Amino acid sequence: MRERQRHSLKDVARKADVSVATVSRYLNGTLDLPARTRARIDGAVASLGYRPNPHARRLSLGRSDTIALVVPDIANPFFARLSAAMERAAAARGQMVTLHATRSCHDREVAVLELAAENLVDGVVFLTHHATGPEIAERLNHFPRAVVLDEDVPGVTAPRLMCDNELGGFLAGRHLYGAGHRKVAYIGGGGELFSTAARLNGLRRGMDGLDATRCYVGEHAARSGRSLARRFLDERDGETAIFVGSDELLLGVLEVFRDAGILVPHDVSLVSFDDVRSLHLFDPPITAVAQPVDTLGRRAVELLLDGAWDDPEFRRTTELLPVHLIDRGSVGPPTGSGQKETGPSPLHSQHGDTS
Amino acid sequence: MRERQRHSLKDVARKADVSVATVSRYLNGTLDLPARTRARIDGAVASLGYRPNPHARRLSLGRSDTIALVVPDIANPFFARLSAAMERAAAARGQMVTLHATRSCHDREVAVLELAAENLVDGVVFLTHHATGPEIAERLNHFPRAVVLDEDVPGVTAPRLMCDNELGGFLAGRHLYGAGHRKVAYIGGGGELFSTAARLNGLRRGMDGLDATRCYVGEHAARSGRSLARRFLDERDGETAIFVGSDELLLGVLEVFRDAGILVPHDVSLVSFDDVRSLHLFDPPITAVAQPVDTLGRRAVELLLDGAWDDPEFRRTTELLPVHLIDRGSVGPPTGSGQKETGPSPLHSQHGDTS
Repeated sequence: MRERQRHSLKDVARKADVSVATVSRYLNGTLDLPARTRARIDGAVASLGYRPNPHARRLSLGRSDTIALVVPDIANPFFARLSAAMERAAAARGQMVTLHATRSCHDREVAVLELAAENLVDGVVFLTHHATGPEIAERLNHFPRAVVLDEDVPGVTAPRLMCDNELGGFLAGRHLYGAGHRKVAYIGGGGELFSTAARLNGLRRGMDGLDATRCYVGEHAARSGRSLARRFLDERDGETAIFVGSDELLLGVLEVFRDAGILVPHDVSLVSFDDVRSLHLFDPPITAVAQPVDTLGRRAVELLLDGAWDDPEFRRTTELLPVHLIDRGSVGPPTGSGQKETGPSPLHSQHGDTS
Repeated sequence: MRERQRHSLKDVARKADVSVATVSRYLNGTLDLPARTRARIDGAVASLGYRPNPHARRLSLGRSDTIALVVPDIANPFFARLSAAMERAAAARGQMVTLHATRSCHDREVAVLELAAENLVDGVVFLTHHATGPEIAERLNHFPRAVVLDEDVPGVTAPRLMCDNELGGFLAGRHLYGAGHRKVAYIGGGGELFSTAARLNGLRRGMDGLDATRCYVGEHAARSGRSLARRFLDERDGETAIFVGSDELLLGVLEVFRDAGILVPHDVSLVSFDDVRSLHLFDPPITAVAQPVDTLGRRAVELLLDGAWDDPEFRRTTELLPVHLIDRGSVGPPTGSGQKETGPSPLHSQHGDTS
């Protein structure tokens, strides 16, 4: 292996004819020196091209100018875009980013948080898609700065940042109700998660208080979407539409529907959540609740670097970013085989519960 | 800010009643001690829960167990999946990953490589999508271990790993030629890049030596795809098909075609390159040359960690991974408006140049 050419503090001290401790304390800004001595040290630093070893600097300062991003899966475009936005915001502030994928696996989350703690990262942005236990909360509470992103982690004393899941559910529900649907299914990730409960609350409100939602929950992955879509088709009992909890699940749902000859929106209407997968070019174009992915990423880094961390109240805040619905071609009137009654299309009628 | 509870080497030394230097050298494995002293130090380490500071360890060992990934854009699903595969392979080997996005911008690439060098990373995986100058090559040559991934970087003494771009061009050309196309356009990223030349060579071979390819080059981004597709429609002179250099460019091409009422494959046939964007669910499903993304990522980490770095020959190797074509619905016979002659479909006819 090639060796790096790097001058040490000792070389600078020798050249400037002062002690190593003097150079070190001068460069750390903890020692005042006569102008002549300063000039000698500055000259030695310049002529040797001396740069402090960052590990030594970290050791003495106890910080690393590094932010750890902990996400379930970077290949998922939602996390990819979120990571990209965080990296961009961090780089603009001179912070480096380490990236850790956990597959939402408990042991891996614990290991990653321990590694980040050992590396004295300045902060952690933590995302998970499963219900975490006290071990995760405890470890997160030990970081000087941690932001919980996208999904709640119970028991953590840290600011939360997520999209307004309840608003997302409400917008989907209102859109489906407005198109005439009275009985819908939810295909989502994580039945015990905060986000699922919030979306289902919103969906019910949007559906004018109707509570006729059958839930199918797995993980946010295409493979899970496939198995949940098959179960939906087997057990379907009058549901004319599905609110799908992520674009990842949507992929699996669309694959199963295509193979089964189910036409969207003719047989089943669909609304997705995320809008990170070029859904406007799909067959048909998919109506979706769009997450503010780039803003979420940028804001997470802002909270980490500029938050009022000395204020205990700040560690109890939850910031919700608004979502919006993009109307494309995947919601139609409820004329599918799931409908028990047929007749004139109830599109945009606001009366009557036909579930 | 909360302070971390961390015992120092000094605490261990005090408790074990030996000097700090003794503890340090014993824990580094550079000092033999009598069994009784060893037991005293081991006991002190255990009872204080002492763990060496990783920055101190890095400082003394001159390495960091960290790999730097330098990519143009993490939000691009090709790089996202590649980064995910590299992170997974690195984590399995106990290596951490730092992630750096450059937007293929020269200044940012230089800054990132300098930062990685300062941080004493054990290796760099470098990807760029522009023709880099000697400053990049020089910096890459200073790393003990660097792998050049996906696109060539001239002047670097480092192993290259990429997909077989010429094979990809050949497969696209043969598929289009087989469907009757005799005049095609290439919409790609970076006219001066190694990958572009390789793909065009392959395309020509696949098209039975025909050289009737008009090239439109920009960057691998949807916005670039839009402007290149508009130029293609303005300047079109008999081209009945397009070989598109990436799924990112494809998004822009499809958007422009949809807005202009151009039907695929009826008016223009398309073959994409990458196959990382759920193209099977697009309207129409898009035929594409699929890159072995996960294998590329895993293999890059293998080369970095297990390569024969002491052998100068190893630093001159180029490893090509095979690609394959997935036939979907975006290539038809050349009956579009770009065709100067009409008549019976020449699909699968192997004779005659109708361009």
